[in-house]
Amino acid sequence: MISLFDNMLYMVPLSGLVALAFGYLFYRDIFSRGTGNDEMRSIYEAIKDGAMAYLTRQYKTIGIISVIVAVLIILAGDVFGVDRLGWEVALAFLIGAGFSALSGFIGMYVAVNSNIRTADAARSSLKEAFHVSFRGGAISGIAVAALSLLGVFTLFMVFEALAEGATIAIALEHVVGYAFGASMAALFAQLGGGIYTKAADVGADLVGKVEAGIPEDDPRNPAVIADLVGDNVGDCAGRGADLFESTAAEIIGAMIIGYAVFKVMGSTPDELVWIMFPLVFLAFGLISSLIGIWTVTMKDEESSLYSTLNRGYMVTAVLSLISLVFISHMMLDLTAYPDLWIYFLLLGIIGVVLGIVIVYITQYYTAGSYRPVRDIAEASETGPATNVISGISIGLETTVLPVLAISLALGGSFGVGWFIGADVIGLTAATDLFVFGLYGTAIATIAMLCSSAFILAEDTFGPITDNAGGIVEMSNLDSDVRIRTDKLDSAGNTTKALTKGYAMATAGLAAFLLFAAYFEIVADVTGQSLLATFDVSLGNPMIFIGGLIGGMLVFIFSALAIRAVGVAAFDMINEVRRQFREYPGIMEGTEKPRYDECVDIATKGALKAMVVPGLLPILFPVTFGLICVFILQTFAPEYTHIAPQAVGALIIVGTMVGILMANFFNNGGGAWDNAKKYIEEGKHGGKGSPAHAAAGVGDTVGDPFKDTAGPSIHVLVKLLSTVTLVTAGLYIV
Amino acid sequence: MISLFDNMLYMVPLSGLVALAFGYLFYRDIFSRGTGNDEMRSIYEAIKDGAMAYLTRQYKTIGIISVIVAVLIILAGDVFGVDRLGWEVALAFLIGAGFSALSGFIGMYVAVNSNIRTADAARSSLKEAFHVSFRGGAISGIAVAALSLLGVFTLFMVFEALAEGATIAIALEHVVGYAFGASMAALFAQLGGGIYTKAADVGADLVGKVEAGIPEDDPRNPAVIADLVGDNVGDCAGRGADLFESTAAEIIGAMIIGYAVFKVMGSTPDELVWIMFPLVFLAFGLISSLIGIWTVTMKDEESSLYSTLNRGYMVTAVLSLISLVFISHMMLDLTAYPDLWIYFLLLGIIGVVLGIVIVYITQYYTAGSYRPVRDIAEASETGPATNVISGISIGLETTVLPVLAISLALGGSFGVGWFIGADVIGLTAATDLFVFGLYGTAIATIAMLCSSAFILAEDTFGPITDNAGGIVEMSNLDSDVRIRTDKLDSAGNTTKALTKGYAMATAGLAAFLLFAAYFEIVADVTGQSLLATFDVSLGNPMIFIGGLIGGMLVFIFSALAIRAVGVAAFDMINEVRRQFREYPGIMEGTEKPRYDECVDIATKGALKAMVVPGLLPILFPVTFGLICVFILQTFAPEYTHIAPQAVGALIIVGTMVGILMANFFNNGGGAWDNAKKYIEEGKHGGKGSPAHAAAGVGDTVGDPFKDTAGPSIHVLVKLLSTVTLVTAGLYIV
Repeated sequence: MISLFDNMLYMVPLSGLVALAFGYLFYRDIFSRGTGNDEMRSIYEAIKDGAMAYLTRQYKTIGIISVIVAVLIILAGDVFGVDRLGWEVALAFLIGAGFSALSGFIGMYVAVNSNIRTADAARSSLKEAFHVSFRGGAISGIAVAALSLLGVFTLFMVFEALAEGATIAIALEHVVGYAFGASMAALFAQLGGGIYTKAADVGADLVGKVEAGIPEDDPRNPAVIADLVGDNVGDCAGRGADLFESTAAEIIGAMIIGYAVFKVMGSTPDELVWIMFPLVFLAFGLISSLIGIWTVTMKDEESSLYSTLNRGYMVTAVLSLISLVFISHMMLDLTAYPDLWIYFLLLGIIGVVLGIVIVYITQYYTAGSYRPVRDIAEASETGPATNVISGISIGLETTVLPVLAISLALGGSFGVGWFIGADVIGLTAATDLFVFGLYGTAIATIAMLCSSAFILAEDTFGPITDNAGGIVEMSNLDSDVRIRTDKLDSAGNTTKALTKGYAMATAGLAAFLLFAAYFEIVADVTGQSLLATFDVSLGNPMIFIGGLIGGMLVFIFSALAIRAVGVAAFDMINEVRRQFREYPGIMEGTEKPRYDECVDIATKGALKAMVVPGLLPILFPVTFGLICVFILQTFAPEYTHIAPQAVGALIIVGTMVGILMANFFNNGGGAWDNAKKYIEEGKHGGKGSPAHAAAGVGDTVGDPFKDTAGPSIHVLVKLLSTVTLVTAGLYIV
Repeated sequence: MISLFDNMLYMVPLSGLVALAFGYLFYRDIFSRGTGNDEMRSIYEAIKDGAMAYLTRQYKTIGIISVIVAVLIILAGDVFGVDRLGWEVALAFLIGAGFSALSGFIGMYVAVNSNIRTADAARSSLKEAFHVSFRGGAISGIAVAALSLLGVFTLFMVFEALAEGATIAIALEHVVGYAFGASMAALFAQLGGGIYTKAADVGADLVGKVEAGIPEDDPRNPAVIADLVGDNVGDCAGRGADLFESTAAEIIGAMIIGYAVFKVMGSTPDELVWIMFPLVFLAFGLISSLIGIWTVTMKDEESSLYSTLNRGYMVTAVLSLISLVFISHMMLDLTAYPDLWIYFLLLGIIGVVLGIVIVYITQYYTAGSYRPVRDIAEASETGPATNVISGISIGLETTVLPVLAISLALGGSFGVGWFIGADVIGLTAATDLFVFGLYGTAIATIAMLCSSAFILAEDTFGPITDNAGGIVEMSNLDSDVRIRTDKLDSAGNTTKALTKGYAMATAGLAAFLLFAAYFEIVADVTGQSLLATFDVSLGNPMIFIGGLIGGMLVFIFSALAIRAVGVAAFDMINEVRRQFREYPGIMEGTEKPRYDECVDIATKGALKAMVVPGLLPILFPVTFGLICVFILQTFAPEYTHIAPQAVGALIIVGTMVGILMANFFNNGGGAWDNAKKYIEEGKHGGKGSPAHAAAGVGDTVGDPFKDTAGPSIHVLVKLLSTVTLVTAGLYIV
């Protein structure tokens, strides 16, 4: 049994508890603040009720699906005689799904309560409003990171203690269920939330802004409450669940690779350090994020929001690198390998630099100050068609630099890991060096993940300020107040775009890690070397077909996600048009619109539409894998080892295509959005010009791209990995 | 030296010459017909001059690039010490590029001369007009198929004779240059033509139809001649070059796999049959196509165009299967292996059935009678944004069934090939069975290609009728005449969409063949087995990165192709707007528009924009391969065998992503187009309604999808394969 005092393991629960304590302090601070006047409170109540009603129904659906999947896990283990698929995996799965939902709930609960307090604070000071909104976001970030880490840690310790005498591999394989549960719940949360928010947004905009000519967040628009609810359920709850599962999946992946290193290094208890290192590193990362979050306060009313946030991020990144050096000295055997810590630091730097580079690339493609957005704005002069053509072209183009950056980081960290094995440790066997190469990518990934609490704080800050602005607008406060919330909102839009870049980059870097973890499990079960199993040769037609189907899965998933928005928005538009037509008092301001009808349409549309695409990433690999096993057993029984590789190709090519498509959707959507804003600044005729109308079409097309399909694909690729990790035993015959 | 009388080889030149004779007869028939009145002739002259002027300049650019690449081939061979890259490859390359250009030229020359004769014939009878337009298309189909086959055959025979004493492998590797030249020229032709035609089309539509409210092909529209020229240079010349290179690349790929079988079977001259079989089969396919084309005549004025064309296709398909049985009996050793012909027939059926299935799938997604198009039409009711969202969703969805169909055909034909090796021949070694599996996919691919002359005839028929309609409209002929050409045009639109499905399916099925050919060359050079070299393991990060970059290449290529259309269309729109503004007499009909200005804008835009994307598929794999070699030689010299595999992953994943994206672009664009037509039939408000305007936006967005990016990607994926086939030696160190 592993002791808490081995390898600084106590730091993991300690950091988690410290983080939760911090979160509680922030919570007390925010909830003690004023909630404005009655009008503001009534809007806040409507948003809160809508959001809670949606979340309750969404969680019910996810709960039912989770229980069914948990039962199927146990059944599949029995039917196919796979020992490792037992109640432990099912339990871990349910806990993962539950914790993921809890993270989403906390994020959303705090967000809907922070928005009104931000709005109230904005009545007196930008500095205070920023404080409330960022700390509100921080609660979400802290809760997500801490819960994810604590969950993995506790389950691992429990399963390790239970599986006494057995190998650590068994414990890790059980914990994998946790990542699977988290990913599955996150996919539904991101997908359902994404459909909800964009159906409401598109519906509100197309009839309100375009047809009726009333401003955004105008209380006369029947879809306005649904739109504000959408920000919470899509951006807060969805993104929270996403980063929760990223942390869970990637830390488990890193531990499994650590286990492979452990085997290479001789399997003595001393070498457990390789397994624990990523976990402890992430614990220090959480503390670095806490300090980074703590430093984010505006000096005075005139401070730049952007540099305030940036400074906090830099503090987080630098602290996590310093802690990497520290724990390298504490945990690694630097007497035997004096240079080892330098290589580890190098890996950390690769991860951190990748994060920063991706942020700059995202800014280049989506900010109004550079060519891409200006090209789209110019193309708007000749109408919506050329605007859309230009935006799609830019979206496709935006894959280039991120792919190159991810490739460099991946190749670089693998190379450094390889050199650790070859030059520092002195290994020579290709398999051993390969395992160390993978470990290099694992450390770089964890280095990126270290700032996840901070990044999520920045991200959740966005919808809180967005909502605060909505409340201000709807309750007719002074224009000063709206100017303050607009400043916050604009900063929030930027941070939201950057977070997507960050999420995509971690997914890209971690992808390789997760495949490797899958093949390490296959290797462990079959008693082969990792290098032998991780031989997904596209030259075999079955493996090639697996890859092709994996790529296709991303396309059909995106199609369903985008269509769901289109269908729900269509219903929403017709409802808003109906209300304007049937109740003329609404536009005159003498009659209140029926907000709840629109909330209901978004809720039903999202819940109905999320189920099929949410199940695809589970059904595809499992069904394909079982078909492969059947075909091989029937026609070519001596080649059954190909089945797990064909499934592997499905997830690998699915991930590659997912990285490309997520970039296309996120950045394309972001560029369209900002092209419209660029025109609104007075370029190409400014607001109300034909170019502006054309840009509005592109902006609307981009909505489901950047807020539904794109972010969902981040989760999809990780769900593909975790589902195959859990079901690996089914394809090994 | 191989004799013409071995293995029925004489059938190859014979079929080619018979086909050319047929083509000449058709040519005499068409050119002897009337060319209408003076007004028609003046329009015809304008189209012809514009098309010829463009083609001359395009070929000049392609010529310059080809000579540079040919010199680089020889230089690279010298500098890197790769014997196989010598003057023979450079010569074959230039001949391939030249023949490809010639095919395009013939297709276009015949098309511009057939359109006026079709228009003239339409003055008296639909039957005659159909006869002229289809036979005009047939000349193109016949010339392309015959030239491609004759070129491969002649070069192979010459190189085989020259390389006396050396292996057949050397001759085949030289001939590969021919496929590379053909692919490169085809990519430029398809890309340049695609940009030209859509820039003109989008420009003409957006100002003419949308802003000025004049009908399509109205002579008052300054861009109308450019639009008609575009049909010729894009659809005729571009598609001709595309199918030329498909035939060349795929037949060479099949012969290389045949060579691998030849080695397995013991390398006696008797076994040369495995190499020659695909060539002879295709020769019979050409004759089957000729007969199929011959049967396409309308019984009377009331015959259905669609079933007339369909019957011709069925005749072609059935005849090619019968000929497969025949040559199996003539060429294969049925005394030793009595069942062999049945398996060959099965492979032929797989290829033919895949072609038919893809056609039905394409119809389902793009025809107005089914859900997808109707969904888009319905979404148009709420404006252009929902129309575009819906179209993109449908486009993404259309990848599912073709991927499943291609996967089944690929897996099925590989399986049948494997069984031939295992059960019929009685082999046991995995490598040998693998080679037979690949041979199975080769035979299925050739079976699909057998009808290529017929398919291209159908395809070129489209733009001829489109142009004929334009001439009729512009020269104010009776409405009866226009009704006849409209019927032809509508049939032409359907056949064009089907051809794209066919081209995509052959590319998908042949893709695997071409990778295999690449690895067979690597195997031959390094003396390994094909199974050992074709081990593109995505588990290695360098190979993974190769795959990711291959996928990204398709995205950046599409981005550039689509942007080029946007940019050129932007200029075109501004020019048309300028003419309407500065010469008010145009709209009143008292002044002639400056057609040549628009022709010039399209020409310059296309030529300027095609160069960079056209070079990417050459630069990417070669640069990446050389970087890999450098990195491995510097850091890990014992792993240099990974370099050719990393390049292999680039082309394989590039091809997978290419198949997905081409489907998305082609079918999405087709669905948008037909959604607009569906509304024009009176649904959702009909012509002039807001839904119709919204559908027009989607139609325009779809234009560069379906006629520029989509078809170019078909060529791109084959160019990726042929360039790596030619440069394979550079990555083997």
